[in-house]
Amino acid sequence: MTRGGPERLLFPGSVIATAFALFAAQAVADPLPSWNDGPTKRAIVEFVAQVSSPDSSNYVPPAERIAVFDNDGTLWAEQPLYVQIAFALDRVRALAPEHPEWKSTQPFKAVLEGDLETALSKTENGAAEIVMATHTGMTAAEFSAIAADWLGTARHPTTGRRYTEMVYQPMLELLAYLRANDFKTYITSGGGIAFLRAFAQNVYGIPPEQVIGSSTRTRYEYRDGNPVLIRLPETNYYNDKEGKPIAINQHIGRRPIAAFGNSDGDLQMLQWTCAGDGERFCLYVHHTDADREWAYDRESPIGRLDKGLDQAQAEGWTVVDMKIDWNVVFSGKQD
Amino acid sequence: MTRGGPERLLFPGSVIATAFALFAAQAVADPLPSWNDGPTKRAIVEFVAQVSSPDSSNYVPPAERIAVFDNDGTLWAEQPLYVQIAFALDRVRALAPEHPEWKSTQPFKAVLEGDLETALSKTENGAAEIVMATHTGMTAAEFSAIAADWLGTARHPTTGRRYTEMVYQPMLELLAYLRANDFKTYITSGGGIAFLRAFAQNVYGIPPEQVIGSSTRTRYEYRDGNPVLIRLPETNYYNDKEGKPIAINQHIGRRPIAAFGNSDGDLQMLQWTCAGDGERFCLYVHHTDADREWAYDRESPIGRLDKGLDQAQAEGWTVVDMKIDWNVVFSGKQD
Repeated sequence: MTRGGPERLLFPGSVIATAFALFAAQAVADPLPSWNDGPTKRAIVEFVAQVSSPDSSNYVPPAERIAVFDNDGTLWAEQPLYVQIAFALDRVRALAPEHPEWKSTQPFKAVLEGDLETALSKTENGAAEIVMATHTGMTAAEFSAIAADWLGTARHPTTGRRYTEMVYQPMLELLAYLRANDFKTYITSGGGIAFLRAFAQNVYGIPPEQVIGSSTRTRYEYRDGNPVLIRLPETNYYNDKEGKPIAINQHIGRRPIAAFGNSDGDLQMLQWTCAGDGERFCLYVHHTDADREWAYDRESPIGRLDKGLDQAQAEGWTVVDMKIDWNVVFSGKQD
Repeated sequence: MTRGGPERLLFPGSVIATAFALFAAQAVADPLPSWNDGPTKRAIVEFVAQVSSPDSSNYVPPAERIAVFDNDGTLWAEQPLYVQIAFALDRVRALAPEHPEWKSTQPFKAVLEGDLETALSKTENGAAEIVMATHTGMTAAEFSAIAADWLGTARHPTTGRRYTEMVYQPMLELLAYLRANDFKTYITSGGGIAFLRAFAQNVYGIPPEQVIGSSTRTRYEYRDGNPVLIRLPETNYYNDKEGKPIAINQHIGRRPIAAFGNSDGDLQMLQWTCAGDGERFCLYVHHTDADREWAYDRESPIGRLDKGLDQAQAEGWTVVDMKIDWNVVFSGKQD
């Protein structure tokens, strides 16, 4: 009737494996030093132990250890506006001399006059026009260089830090911890795939082939005898909400076992991930720290977390309380 | 003036590295035993040595060693018709009881009457209708199971072998050889991405996230309380010709350093790959062996190799002469 005698009944293998992994992890060195001890950190460590300990009944082979991360608001700050929008606005200013017509055409006129509220107020549309005008027409390689250059010099409007220093240190540790346990870490963002790839390797250690994002169409053509890919001002894919699980299936071809987000735009990705068989992990980063970062959720136009927060509570997903769970927020040197 | 003395002038590091790699490879064990000695095999081995020897001036870091392979006619046989079309035809027969209207509707009527010429004669259209009717309407998971089941039992119409035994043994060795040298190997096929993923891992050792193919759109919805992806009868992407470099950029985000194809449908992928900086390798499999496989090129409706053959000669790309270069063709047990 029993397969392992009384000890096995008292201590099932998975519990022993988890306990040992927890002990071993703490005995060696804390892989998540920016995470305060508490139920959030324990849930992460226990999940990783469960799926990566060969003796665990919830063991998952390394090839299937896929973890997907939203970017804006999950891996780096998204307030007071998405970094890619800040990039697009700077590009409007930089390209203005080549576009005299922008002086009298909205939303460009408003950008050049410093009136961001007007520029972005027809919200989606104004922003979309600005993105298309500044993100297309060049080759894919040219765009990558432009984005990388900007990221190397631009500064956040309120903190004065580089954007790449406004990455969440606890999430960098989490990415590294998962990879150390043979997870493959992916970004799946509503942001542009080419923009993300301009920094994902250096900042997150995530290679271009593990970045999924929104995209414009491209055209293959010859210029000066060489084949190039030209970025066209047409949407190819919008990677948000239902678009996330669809793109994950298209790009990865397997269902992740762990998903990390911060807004309602990530909800379907978390639903899809945690509806799979076996041990799963879904986590929302909840922005609760107005002192060190920003505090926002159900009412925020950027990164709204409303339905997601309800479903997280109903499903028992892990919710990071930034103020309580993180002892450090940003990766850059602290002031 | 010189950095390494007279020996270095006589024997540049890259030549020594290549010679040593060639010697070492042969002294240990031939990783490409199904390839006859000759210029084709030497070109492959020399390229791999050049990019993977740290001392070589053409060294490429492992992360950038991306190799892309067409599937039909490059990794497995595509005559007398694409395997996926054979699958679709079998599905029409299997699903006919649920579709009484097919008895009187083309192209299904012709399939059920065994008149494949008529069924496929409005070529693209007939085939496309048959594929859409048999590949959509179910969930992504259901389709994967259907495809895997079929591949486990179906037999090729003229050889009687399983399709998965009509894989080219020399190409399997090439895939393994590249991976042993830290290449990441991708499939990029005009075939359906979900169909390819049903066998790519088992047959080629290529995981789902390294498969790029044509696709239908999918819809995210809830069925019986669970989120599913439903395959829709609408084309999402046709991964052929210009579509191949575009999809490679979308999916991988870096330019491959090696590309392998067999038809004009692969031409833009080879152009794009070999137009990159540094050492590159482009190879066409030329079907020249009517005895062991099929002989076809410029006039074939399936796998036409015409412009590609001209450009391969003009650019000095490697062309496999199947009859001369391969001492074994298929991976399955030989008759």
